[in-house]
Amino acid sequence: MLMSSKNKGLTVSYVDVIGDELKRVDEYIKASLLSKQKVLEVALKELLEAGGKRLRPALVLLSGKFGRYDDKKLIPLAAAVEILHMATLVHDDIIDDSKMRRGRPTVQSRWGKDIAVFTGDFLFAKTFLLLAHSTTVENMQGLSKVVKAICEGEIAQYQSRYDKYVTVRQYLKRIGRKTALLFALSCYVGAHESKCPKNVERCLREFGFNFGMAFQITDDLLDFTGDAAKTGKPVGSDFVQGVYTLPLIYAINSSYGSEVIKILDKESYGPEDVERMIELVHASGGIEYGKKLAKSYLNRASAFIEDLAPIPAKAALKNLVDGLTERSY
Amino acid sequence: MLMSSKNKGLTVSYVDVIGDELKRVDEYIKASLLSKQKVLEVALKELLEAGGKRLRPALVLLSGKFGRYDDKKLIPLAAAVEILHMATLVHDDIIDDSKMRRGRPTVQSRWGKDIAVFTGDFLFAKTFLLLAHSTTVENMQGLSKVVKAICEGEIAQYQSRYDKYVTVRQYLKRIGRKTALLFALSCYVGAHESKCPKNVERCLREFGFNFGMAFQITDDLLDFTGDAAKTGKPVGSDFVQGVYTLPLIYAINSSYGSEVIKILDKESYGPEDVERMIELVHASGGIEYGKKLAKSYLNRASAFIEDLAPIPAKAALKNLVDGLTERSY
Repeated sequence: MLMSSKNKGLTVSYVDVIGDELKRVDEYIKASLLSKQKVLEVALKELLEAGGKRLRPALVLLSGKFGRYDDKKLIPLAAAVEILHMATLVHDDIIDDSKMRRGRPTVQSRWGKDIAVFTGDFLFAKTFLLLAHSTTVENMQGLSKVVKAICEGEIAQYQSRYDKYVTVRQYLKRIGRKTALLFALSCYVGAHESKCPKNVERCLREFGFNFGMAFQITDDLLDFTGDAAKTGKPVGSDFVQGVYTLPLIYAINSSYGSEVIKILDKESYGPEDVERMIELVHASGGIEYGKKLAKSYLNRASAFIEDLAPIPAKAALKNLVDGLTERSY
Repeated sequence: MLMSSKNKGLTVSYVDVIGDELKRVDEYIKASLLSKQKVLEVALKELLEAGGKRLRPALVLLSGKFGRYDDKKLIPLAAAVEILHMATLVHDDIIDDSKMRRGRPTVQSRWGKDIAVFTGDFLFAKTFLLLAHSTTVENMQGLSKVVKAICEGEIAQYQSRYDKYVTVRQYLKRIGRKTALLFALSCYVGAHESKCPKNVERCLREFGFNFGMAFQITDDLLDFTGDAAKTGKPVGSDFVQGVYTLPLIYAINSSYGSEVIKILDKESYGPEDVERMIELVHASGGIEYGKKLAKSYLNRASAFIEDLAPIPAKAALKNLVDGLTERSY
């Protein structure tokens, strides 16, 4: 652990607290995803090795620390949550027709849409299989509901593509289902499995939800502020695909709205359109607005864990919030 | 019930035995598939109303009759099995790029591939949600394993497309995973939930598996013998899409093999190619071979339930076997 004057206290990254367990989660996932179908196994191995921060498993484990932490129980659950996340990524990429994810070719661009459909299904099945082995009926139900909500969120997103009248409210509902619910569930599962008191369980779940909202808003900002080399996908690719996120929705409703809409209404977008759109979104204040909204979700997330026991896991959750706060400023 | 001299005994259709429950299964499915996403709801309603024989739910319910039958427990399970089947149909149609299923446009041709991916996922989630509410961990695990196997079977099928060296053994393994396992599971779930003795559970599961094998073989024969108006898809569409089923595999390895392969090797197939292929498959004895193999699976299925209690459900299972036997002669 390091002292950091900037944060006026301890800076504890989640890797400090649960780094070893996260390695075991990865091992567990690898072992779970063996299949007689070699294509499937190779596709999954690539997916796993493409990295990712394992945020959802981290939330399961950190939340578990507030109760009777039992790594034997929590590691399969943390693995299940990550496998579920992988399943949604694979199916998302089909929808977006994405060629790259985290700087690597997607399952569908490498193996075809058909393999991608079944790879995702296989991962869903695997998620439920892991859960059926290792959790309570409540966690199982929670997870099924979240999968249902994710599907509904994705369909809502797809349905509202190219919709210039989409509201901030609709956007928030959509990312709530698409992203924040799984963050909330990850916290809930860890807390519930470790038999935390109901109020602690609730605080952690709320932490997860609000953190998840901020996470997705920040991620969506990157489509206008990011560096393609870092994000692994071209700038502006969301709106080019008709997915209008917060900064753009803000710009549509600003005094720059008419020029924004004129670009959106074009039959196709050239690089100069993308460039101009990014300028307009910045000029409208859409980025600032997104950052402010993300910050308010992060504040709410922090507030929900304020009264929890001052254990290292709490410092790690705080650190996640601080990390995202920095990302959004 | 009707006396039938042909079958030297009672002819009891499953509708006679569990017709009312099957209606309630349909109601249950309809109620389960409500969604805030209207597209999803409409797509699912169409899928449900397109019909189908509800064979899998029927197997759950009939198998349940051999134990302590409790319709309140079994109806949600029967619904879950059918919803799972619907999920696999929706995702299958994406792979096959099918325009029609049971004489109606498929979800993907009507709503697009993207909606179809999530419709399938939504159905998977729903399946597990229903199960988490209403069954034992064993049934849950059984189901997850079957979903995994179905995915592996589908991937195996996709991988072996246009493979002229595919063997009968590989074909049987593929349809075992793709189809027969879910039939087996349906029987097992019903028997297990009704607390049948282990040996009865096993006999019913084996009945389901062997019946499922015969069912798929018979279905595959229809691609060469069927009437497009009845089957709802054009004759020969399996092999045109590179899916080589039993009669064709037989023909490839017969004395007609060289002409069969000459057609398969063409860049594209005209109607005259399809017609000639059907002639060759018939001439090679591939249809007869398929019928014989289906019959042997049906005999095994019958043998497995021979010693079960002589209740109406048993007569209904027998009747299913007889119905399929007739279909294959």
